[in-house]
Amino acid sequence: MQIPTRDEIAAAAARIAPDVRRTPLWRLPGAALGLDCAEVWLKLEQLQLSGSFKARGMFNRLRSLPVPEAGAIVASGGNAGIAVAAAARALGVPCEVFVPEVSSAAKRAALAALGARVVVHGAAYADAYAASVERQRETGALAMHAYDQPEVVAGAGTLAAEIEAEAGVPDRLLVSVGGGGLVAGIAAWFEGRTRIEALEPARAPTLHAALAAGEPVDVEVGGVAADSLGARRLGTIAWQVALRHPLVSTLLDDEAIRAAQLRLWRELRLAVEPAAALPLAALWSGALKPAAHERVAVVVCGANLDPATLA
Amino acid sequence: MQIPTRDEIAAAAARIAPDVRRTPLWRLPGAALGLDCAEVWLKLEQLQLSGSFKARGMFNRLRSLPVPEAGAIVASGGNAGIAVAAAARALGVPCEVFVPEVSSAAKRAALAALGARVVVHGAAYADAYAASVERQRETGALAMHAYDQPEVVAGAGTLAAEIEAEAGVPDRLLVSVGGGGLVAGIAAWFEGRTRIEALEPARAPTLHAALAAGEPVDVEVGGVAADSLGARRLGTIAWQVALRHPLVSTLLDDEAIRAAQLRLWRELRLAVEPAAALPLAALWSGALKPAAHERVAVVVCGANLDPATLA
Ligand SMILES: Cc1ncc(COP(=O)(O)O)c(C=O)c1O
Ligand SMILES: Cc1ncc(COP(=O)(O)O)c(C=O)c1O
Repeated sequence: MQIPTRDEIAAAAARIAPDVRRTPLWRLPGAALGLDCAEVWLKLEQLQLSGSFKARGMFNRLRSLPVPEAGAIVASGGNAGIAVAAAARALGVPCEVFVPEVSSAAKRAALAALGARVVVHGAAYADAYAASVERQRETGALAMHAYDQPEVVAGAGTLAAEIEAEAGVPDRLLVSVGGGGLVAGIAAWFEGRTRIEALEPARAPTLHAALAAGEPVDVEVGGVAADSLGARRLGTIAWQVALRHPLVSTLLDDEAIRAAQLRLWRELRLAVEPAAALPLAALWSGALKPAAHERVAVVVCGANLDPATLA
Repeated sequence: MQIPTRDEIAAAAARIAPDVRRTPLWRLPGAALGLDCAEVWLKLEQLQLSGSFKARGMFNRLRSLPVPEAGAIVASGGNAGIAVAAAARALGVPCEVFVPEVSSAAKRAALAALGARVVVHGAAYADAYAASVERQRETGALAMHAYDQPEVVAGAGTLAAEIEAEAGVPDRLLVSVGGGGLVAGIAAWFEGRTRIEALEPARAPTLHAALAAGEPVDVEVGGVAADSLGARRLGTIAWQVALRHPLVSTLLDDEAIRAAQLRLWRELRLAVEPAAALPLAALWSGALKPAAHERVAVVVCGANLDPATLA
């Protein structure tokens, strides 16, 4: 596994430009968010096609590699599955998504509405994943990973390139971590030129655990953001990035995450899923305290939620 | 009543700059919205402080005129009331909001949470308004009108100035109309340099009726957007603007408005109230068909809704 270079990320951006949305970067004085720092730059990536940044990586992989007749295959009950299905549909490629029995009927219906063949298999995600691996051997479909393939990581990095093109290099960038594909792509783009703050649910601390153990290790996952940040183990690409560029991990409890999600709606009219609320949870709870002169970039990464949960 | 000049609108923008948010202008290829035109520019004004563009005009009026000790007073069960309350609180000014008995408990609670004194009076809006006029005579508070005061119209015009500063003059601009303060401010800024499409609910056609009658006349109001676009009669400033700069009125039925509201959430993850969905309802229903070369600006004007209504 290789860390994507800046050139590879720039190439990915050009490759997926016809497919994805260039999302707005909303620059506000810190005071507008009740914060002491000079500026907050909100990258509104929850407005991305498929409702999360994941579409960038999936389009990049499907456009980088030859896609067999069997199309694409992925195991995911969450945003990666939705993004693969959306990208496959847009590119006219067949798609199979393996989900565990615990996945909700609503998620399955959403995947089916995007034209994916949904296969329900096994009690846990690991079972669905094992079944998808077996199926991939049969069909020869292109296997898509939620966060640990170079094209997927490079695709995520394209949002960092957009931030820099529009506003320059921030003093600090806050981003949520699950399997680490998103933070890896961003850190690979900035190459140490900004301080990267990785935010993790205390109940799904993949990077935190890897940093403590000196290598990626399995963690128990749960909590309000488990749906999107519930990878069991940091990806190998993310780990290589963490070894090259320092990533600071901060853990947040469910209460702070949920409070930030509700406040983002009430005060800013941003409807986001819990995974996207971690950066503001860190700022509003005081877990992170940027200095007065800082310009702080925040990745608002997803909005695949039931809006009724904001009421 | 005077039409605000461009200089007055520019002055308003400078005056309210410390108070309001500069909202993002999201530029997308028409194809990203399933449309044939070259570009769509979404002015994401639903992210404005108070949840609608109304904050611009209210801050401008409160900052333009001497505010008596009694503070500000307004009759409104909707976004104007919320905006006055939010602006008054931010500027440390007392505020009274008169609402009719039909107003929801949720709205009253929201106003009270903003620190406003909420007075419930009469069966209909007109009764609450009459009571507020009487009360204003007693207290000498600064009367705030939802759409028919020069400072309020100039404040609304500041969002047009932002669009032009960021992207230039669009070929066409689509905006919803209630009492007409918003469209008046925008048309006053552009001074005939772009085609302004006024979108109205068929069940609240104030501009349409005024154009037909040759003067503002009372209309019956109802429908899904009545909450925000339910003014009974076009304002006198808006009428003067309509006489000077042509405004094209297009009527939309509730079904098209509601369908566009749901589609904005499903496909773009924009949570907006029905009043803000009219421009996209016009485009998606085919009521308006911009040509292939056109860059079409759309004002996304408010998001004061119960998010559960999007589920
Ligand atoms: C909305 C959202 N944010 C953040 C993440 C974390 O991304 P990664 O797994 O690449 O760390 C995910 C992963 O699915 C997600 O869906
Ligand atoms: C969200 C929203 N959009 C549009 C309008 C229409 O504005 P005007 O009454 O100035 O025409 C209103 C008025 O309250 C509103 O609240």
